[in-house]
Amino acid sequence: MSVTYPRGFLSAGISAGIKSGRKKDLALVFSKEPAVAAAVSTTNKFKAASLLLSLNHLRQAGGKQAVLLNSGNANAINGKEGMAITGRIVSALADTLKINLPGVLFASTGKIGLLLPEKKIIEALPKLVKGLSQDGAPAATAIMTTDRVPKETARESGISGRKGPVRIGGMAKGSGMIKPELATMLAVLTTDAVIEREALQTALREAVNQSFNLITVDDDQSTNDFVVILANGEAANPRIKKETKEFYLFREELTACCLELAKKMAADGEGANKLITVKVTGAWSLKDARRVARRIAGSNLVKTAIAGENPNWGRILSSAGSCAARMNPQKTSLSLAKTLVFNAGEVIAYPEKAMQKALAAKEIEIELDLGVGNFSATAYGCDLTEDYVKINKEYS
Amino acid sequence: MSVTYPRGFLSAGISAGIKSGRKKDLALVFSKEPAVAAAVSTTNKFKAASLLLSLNHLRQAGGKQAVLLNSGNANAINGKEGMAITGRIVSALADTLKINLPGVLFASTGKIGLLLPEKKIIEALPKLVKGLSQDGAPAATAIMTTDRVPKETARESGISGRKGPVRIGGMAKGSGMIKPELATMLAVLTTDAVIEREALQTALREAVNQSFNLITVDDDQSTNDFVVILANGEAANPRIKKETKEFYLFREELTACCLELAKKMAADGEGANKLITVKVTGAWSLKDARRVARRIAGSNLVKTAIAGENPNWGRILSSAGSCAARMNPQKTSLSLAKTLVFNAGEVIAYPEKAMQKALAAKEIEIELDLGVGNFSATAYGCDLTEDYVKINKEYS
Repeated sequence: MSVTYPRGFLSAGISAGIKSGRKKDLALVFSKEPAVAAAVSTTNKFKAASLLLSLNHLRQAGGKQAVLLNSGNANAINGKEGMAITGRIVSALADTLKINLPGVLFASTGKIGLLLPEKKIIEALPKLVKGLSQDGAPAATAIMTTDRVPKETARESGISGRKGPVRIGGMAKGSGMIKPELATMLAVLTTDAVIEREALQTALREAVNQSFNLITVDDDQSTNDFVVILANGEAANPRIKKETKEFYLFREELTACCLELAKKMAADGEGANKLITVKVTGAWSLKDARRVARRIAGSNLVKTAIAGENPNWGRILSSAGSCAARMNPQKTSLSLAKTLVFNAGEVIAYPEKAMQKALAAKEIEIELDLGVGNFSATAYGCDLTEDYVKINKEYS
Repeated sequence: MSVTYPRGFLSAGISAGIKSGRKKDLALVFSKEPAVAAAVSTTNKFKAASLLLSLNHLRQAGGKQAVLLNSGNANAINGKEGMAITGRIVSALADTLKINLPGVLFASTGKIGLLLPEKKIIEALPKLVKGLSQDGAPAATAIMTTDRVPKETARESGISGRKGPVRIGGMAKGSGMIKPELATMLAVLTTDAVIEREALQTALREAVNQSFNLITVDDDQSTNDFVVILANGEAANPRIKKETKEFYLFREELTACCLELAKKMAADGEGANKLITVKVTGAWSLKDARRVARRIAGSNLVKTAIAGENPNWGRILSSAGSCAARMNPQKTSLSLAKTLVFNAGEVIAYPEKAMQKALAAKEIEIELDLGVGNFSATAYGCDLTEDYVKINKEYS
């Protein structure tokens, strides 16, 4: 149960021969009825051909009904021919589904600079469409690259419709390293809510800020990052408008969905063995809190220390101190793996054996109180192991 | 020949027992006469005790004569007791050298959060002072942490003094990873020039911007980063004032010294096998050029690709595109290892065997033309290998 949990959605995932070894590499999410859509995407100057097409279709009028996704080829930075092939593939899918061309969106992930195998993909489309079902697993599997597990979510909201409570579902593929320089993050969310387009866009933007943007850094995005939500209205609830009680309920559930996917991504970073949670409290502003939390979660030196189960907490404070954020060393306190190691500017002696044991866990918590304000934020990351390097040396 | 190349400077390096295994860990650079000093240091909020003391002494009147340095302990984030110990060590050195207290500066590198072994260091000071000589090597060795080779430089400038041409010398220790999140970078430069304090500070700031700041990122500095220069006037040249011909000559030579040290650092990054040079041309502004060059040189995905001798050039453009800098994909061109791979928005087929051979070299050049302006910058980095992770998992 994932993208197909809300009423009226189907999905499929097959092998089209983009990847070697008959691995699944082509996915489709389909709404039986035209849906209201909202999206958040990378600010990278080199946007993938798939993404450029999707952004173009999102600007056009009319409901959206299909999200095509492929793995094994980023369909990015591949020139005019790349754009032309992209157009023909999407056009073929619209014909196969018998829907309007602007109703189709497209997202890709994989290696940059290659043309998509147009013929293979177009020939696979009828099989893909035929495979549409309520089983969300094949689609969630077909978008994986170096992910070790598929990432899905499904939640019921407290909003009632004539067909029952509004549902939200989703699937995602992880960014290679978490707070990646470039590795792609894709997520498709679905809901059967009746909701205004502007309310949907606002809810998505805020949900992304509190989830995916706490594992990836805004100005550090890939050519392909894309989060999209389709709302097909099948729950037949009263239309959700901005700043109403139902809007806040919807946004809360959508955030929970996104956060679940984001945490699954963090725990499944390339080569990662541990999930790192960084809670920053006592910050002067929300921006400061987020900046410091993300900086720590993304620090190579912190990540390698956690990989080595090495209580080198000085690296955490040094990482925090390197941020353009208000702080006062004399008011700062730090706990590592639930153990206080630094309090109001002074080093705390901690029991070494207990710390060693705590650092052996699969989930490591870092809690930093900056002591200069009332804002807080949590960021998620993973440890950095030799396997990360190995994977990325060879990835080609 | 390094810090002792300019007239009137001596240095020493010994083992004081801060590191294990009788490794050299305490260094001293000494000017026989009080010198004019200038410095550039980290903006980290958690500044090392050594650095806080040095900044305090730099603000006080009177010439500077000694720079004490230790490795094996960062003397950072260690509370009030850390500051007190620092004060006593520096005071003991001033007594031993029979110079004024504010004439002593101090820099440390190593693990954060530990108190310096006060007794060991104070007991070692007479031996350190006795060891002062014109041999620069022991001092350059004593400041190494994970560095594999000492880093020294020495140049003669075209500025004439009564004692001969003005000389500049220097030594440095590398930052662990290059574009490090935290690893410390220290450099001590010396010159026998007669120069105004303000001119010296300006020249140092500009030299650092064109060298160390192109391998490390300003807002990402360690608790300890410190670059200091002492000018003792022994060349007896006419006093160098700002914006004179001699000032520009001096700045040029100082920049060359800093760049030599910076490139040695980049090539000696932790676990590194290759030096990466990133030349960005055609940028809209100098800031854009530097930002893009540094981003590419610091990208984990680019660094691992180079380690794997993997021609995955898409990661380079994606990394560039993720910067807040003006660019236009249709005007962008990229060469990797002297081979054009992308030209004005289109992919260029390159001979694969020749590329494989080129990528096997120890120095890899990346040349990116953004095609939107006339500014350029070069940044230096190194590849990212499994050894980097290994070193930093265990470092404690």
